[in-house]
Amino acid sequence: MTPPTTGLPAENTTDNNDHLVQSDDPEHPANLIPSLCAKFWTLGWVTGTGGGASIRDDDLVYLAPSGVQKELMKPSDIYVLSLAAQAKSLSRRQRVYLRSPAVYKPSQCTPLFLAAFTKRNAGCCIHTHSHWAVLVTLILEQQGSKEFRINNIEQIKGFGKGFQKSGNLGYHDTLVIPVIENTAHEEDLTEFLEEAMDKYPDTYAVLVRRHGVYVWGDNVHKAKTQCESLDYLFQLAVEMKQLGLPWITDIEPTIPTRKD
Amino acid sequence: MTPPTTGLPAENTTDNNDHLVQSDDPEHPANLIPSLCAKFWTLGWVTGTGGGASIRDDDLVYLAPSGVQKELMKPSDIYVLSLAAQAKSLSRRQRVYLRSPAVYKPSQCTPLFLAAFTKRNAGCCIHTHSHWAVLVTLILEQQGSKEFRINNIEQIKGFGKGFQKSGNLGYHDTLVIPVIENTAHEEDLTEFLEEAMDKYPDTYAVLVRRHGVYVWGDNVHKAKTQCESLDYLFQLAVEMKQLGLPWITDIEPTIPTRKD
Amino acid sequence: MTPPTTGLPAENTTDNNDHLVQSDDPEHPANLIPSLCAKFWTLGWVTGTGGGASIRDDDLVYLAPSGVQKELMKPSDIYVLSLAAQAKSLSRRQRVYLRSPAVYKPSQCTPLFLAAFTKRNAGCCIHTHSHWAVLVTLILEQQGSKEFRINNIEQIKGFGKGFQKSGNLGYHDTLVIPVIENTAHEEDLTEFLEEAMDKYPDTYAVLVRRHGVYVWGDNVHKAKTQCESLDYLFQLAVEMKQLGLPWITDIEPTIPTRKD
Amino acid sequence: MTPPTTGLPAENTTDNNDHLVQSDDPEHPANLIPSLCAKFWTLGWVTGTGGGASIRDDDLVYLAPSGVQKELMKPSDIYVLSLAAQAKSLSRRQRVYLRSPAVYKPSQCTPLFLAAFTKRNAGCCIHTHSHWAVLVTLILEQQGSKEFRINNIEQIKGFGKGFQKSGNLGYHDTLVIPVIENTAHEEDLTEFLEEAMDKYPDTYAVLVRRHGVYVWGDNVHKAKTQCESLDYLFQLAVEMKQLGLPWITDIEPTIPTRKD
Repeated sequence: MTPPTTGLPAENTTDNNDHLVQSDDPEHPANLIPSLCAKFWTLGWVTGTGGGASIRDDDLVYLAPSGVQKELMKPSDIYVLSLAAQAKSLSRRQRVYLRSPAVYKPSQCTPLFLAAFTKRNAGCCIHTHSHWAVLVTLILEQQGSKEFRINNIEQIKGFGKGFQKSGNLGYHDTLVIPVIENTAHEEDLTEFLEEAMDKYPDTYAVLVRRHGVYVWGDNVHKAKTQCESLDYLFQLAVEMKQLGLPWITDIEPTIPTRKD
Repeated sequence: MTPPTTGLPAENTTDNNDHLVQSDDPEHPANLIPSLCAKFWTLGWVTGTGGGASIRDDDLVYLAPSGVQKELMKPSDIYVLSLAAQAKSLSRRQRVYLRSPAVYKPSQCTPLFLAAFTKRNAGCCIHTHSHWAVLVTLILEQQGSKEFRINNIEQIKGFGKGFQKSGNLGYHDTLVIPVIENTAHEEDLTEFLEEAMDKYPDTYAVLVRRHGVYVWGDNVHKAKTQCESLDYLFQLAVEMKQLGLPWITDIEPTIPTRKD
Repeated sequence: MTPPTTGLPAENTTDNNDHLVQSDDPEHPANLIPSLCAKFWTLGWVTGTGGGASIRDDDLVYLAPSGVQKELMKPSDIYVLSLAAQAKSLSRRQRVYLRSPAVYKPSQCTPLFLAAFTKRNAGCCIHTHSHWAVLVTLILEQQGSKEFRINNIEQIKGFGKGFQKSGNLGYHDTLVIPVIENTAHEEDLTEFLEEAMDKYPDTYAVLVRRHGVYVWGDNVHKAKTQCESLDYLFQLAVEMKQLGLPWITDIEPTIPTRKD
Repeated sequence: MTPPTTGLPAENTTDNNDHLVQSDDPEHPANLIPSLCAKFWTLGWVTGTGGGASIRDDDLVYLAPSGVQKELMKPSDIYVLSLAAQAKSLSRRQRVYLRSPAVYKPSQCTPLFLAAFTKRNAGCCIHTHSHWAVLVTLILEQQGSKEFRINNIEQIKGFGKGFQKSGNLGYHDTLVIPVIENTAHEEDLTEFLEEAMDKYPDTYAVLVRRHGVYVWGDNVHKAKTQCESLDYLFQLAVEMKQLGLPWITDIEPTIPTRKD
């Protein structure tokens, strides 16, 4: 029954700003993160304290702690960080939290979430350990590939065209998700995630080999529905592989004849 | 946390008829659509805002909006449309809503739901992106087939014999579900869905290649239970394929000898 | 929204005995059947109104109606029948209900449930359309087999040794479940179910080819846990088949050496 | 509706110490065991009364009874035992309970849970019949292997380094879980479980061939999250096997270049 040992010492913060995580509004980030994570747990995305989610509201970033059972998280477990204050920090690796929970440690995912917020102006970033995502990276590894590609599936329309572009992908478009190799320490993924963002400026997700996926969006709605659509496509792709069906096909568009 | 941008401008409707979606009766269509869609979300049928459901009550059609998270839908999100008014419209593609939600856009599925209501007098139509449905269309595509056929499975008895016919299919009957090719724009499916209805007058469902399925019924009960039975058969069919078992078999009927 | 049409005409019963299905006790059969069926729906056992459950309390038999959505059933939907009165009936096929719901028709499963009650003195009988059960019958059909056999799996210990025998099966015992062929009309299965009971006097379940399974027990607890254990074994068996693992093996018992 | 017959005769205990299982605190072991087991039931870990969980709070051990439906367990169903009193017992096989439920029998898992508490100072031990665990033991049996080994999967970091060691396994570490052969009587597994603990002093889990898995941890949090992580890895391993992907690979570590 003992939770993980305490995080930052209390003397680090003269005022812990608990008001930042106290709200009656179910849409407040400190309430949304626990309810989203509880839902993600039922989907198998955040099993065994793996995975997580972070929400940005203007300058403030709300983060789930490390090592918490995701379906049991409470608003009081949430860290809050200021992007502006963080930008002034001398070290990329040191972070100053406006608000820290009494127990728990900061998540190793923090710099990866920050990359989505600062490089892509995302409003929400989700990290899952979904075994469909992991299986897709394993199948691609066998093929020596660093890209997941799929086309001609309706659910692809669930993705935006890309950063600062309006509209969504079309049915015949090819969804491309880059795969980066996993590192021994999750923080070390940041460099490679940022590289992938630079190389694939329009992607809303990066797969991590043998680990899972990071998915973001302009807001919680978009991050969550893109993450669902992607997990759906990963599951479909694994099942297609088991049935010997290719992920990429050349299909002649079907044109309607009756117009009015 | 920003939802999709607003739909129809307010000036389109002098009175938004909000009373049409306000009821204490859980069986009222504006309450039933959200509760059904929340259930469908747990079944993986409406992942990532895909899929949906519509109910017709006499002349009025209740519709879920586009791009909404289906497990979070509220009665106030529902569109209402009059079939009689729609029939008088000059254009098939323009629709006048009696009631529109403040945010969201109308669903691209709308003309497909209307086809089931006007051509088959359906009381409810459900559209799922179930990956079992998609996998069945992919398996059939490899076989160059435009029909899903299965027989000698008890669950087939969950389907009615057909439009304006009484009674249900029998255990030895072959259930036939046509497959239409997907189009780049969902509205463009309407023409092909209607063609399939004409060619298969007794079907209660049409598969859409690489996309999902449309299922309807005389009322909510029949549409929902037929949709469940069909998804069950699609899952079974995929698993039979993985085990090398044929979907169509020639079985000698078993005749009971003891009568009284 | 229209439910299935009405069942027995009201004039058949001078008094409908509604008190038989009204109780505040959650363990009352009229309350237990709906709560069990709602649970079974989440397990995929009673999809699309298929399957069902019946409880016997001394002389009284409580039955779910035909064609009801199993996760939405209410105590007022339940039929009640007297075994003694039924025994005096001139025809096996005609049944007189002490209590009938206002809508719905009696379930075609009724004579099959009655067989478990009268021939095996069961207190509860469950019928599922679980696709694991159906897949097992399809795999056995390919092998020309009319018996499901599995041994050396711990979960086998979840089954009683047999009718009027005390104790449970052991780990090394072989669980044998007979398979009967499906008939066009569910009532016609009764003859074959009773034959299987005679031939396999110790079985607590009978598989129905391409249809599902009937499982019973001395009481609700035993019927439900045996049904769960069996579904677990069916799922395991299908997955073992996919992995090329045999259901029956010859294993040397492991004997502990340290005694005290 | 009849539950299993009564356990220890009332005269065995002058005072049944019911206060030991009565608390308003949801974190009290007598409340936690039922809520955990209900959750495990939804995961398919404790189907058909199989499996279970036990919590140790200092000298007191709280145990689920035998043969109870795990999703329906109540605090009053819990046994309580004193480790100190048990250590003074003349026989390993006889146990004196401080508190016994009115019905039910003690679980055959009891000596296995006690092994984790006494030999590893665990605070919680979980036993599942998860079919992923069983399938892994079957796959290993075909390979003549008595060890489950997997490496280079992120979720491996969910495991502690070992008994009385601080820190967790790394991404490149190989997780090794011993497999013991199943015995006809569950109590007889104790000897082999203890042998496996001696041979693999740092393991937090032991697989039981054709049966399931025992997982423990220093506290409830660690036992539960390690059990989740392990089940995730078992599922992944089965799916990797189906896709022809190896569980052990030789991967060159990815080294970040940008430091600050």
